[in-house]
Amino acid sequence: MSFFTIVGMVAAFLTTFSLLPQTIKTIKEKNTEGISVIMYSMFTAGVFLWLLYGFYTKDIPLMLANLVTLAFAVTILTLKLKYR
Amino acid sequence: MSFFTIVGMVAAFLTTFSLLPQTIKTIKEKNTEGISVIMYSMFTAGVFLWLLYGFYTKDIPLMLANLVTLAFAVTILTLKLKYR
Repeated sequence: MSFFTIVGMVAAFLTTFSLLPQTIKTIKEKNTEGISVIMYSMFTAGVFLWLLYGFYTKDIPLMLANLVTLAFAVTILTLKLKYR
Repeated sequence: MSFFTIVGMVAAFLTTFSLLPQTIKTIKEKNTEGISVIMYSMFTAGVFLWLLYGFYTKDIPLMLANLVTLAFAVTILTLKLKYR
């Protein structure tokens, strides 16, 4: 694994898991008040496209980061639509 | 520009600008209450590493997305530290 793949993996870990506490809090409290459906749908669509892009460019850090983030984002978006 | 570079550019636009309203609101209201310094520092460090990774892999969508996101993140982190 090259030095820069490690940089990519650390970047993937940091940006993905920095969202985790907020995600868990939102899921636990089912409180999606502060979340805008339009913005969060944009974010989720963007993460999905990053995932496609990661697969195409065979970029492992990009794939991993966006696979996990997509799972978080879809969970929160589902909650948002359910508890509007 | 290849099809997948366009996919990357659209992904970059969506994930970066879906953060914009929240960022502007935080800057305008100088209200960083809901933001955790640790999590936001993790996020900012991760975005910085994605930027380095983007430069190394010469990945334009990745560079652009993280350059803009880094500007947002550093602004908010500075506000957070200033108005604790």
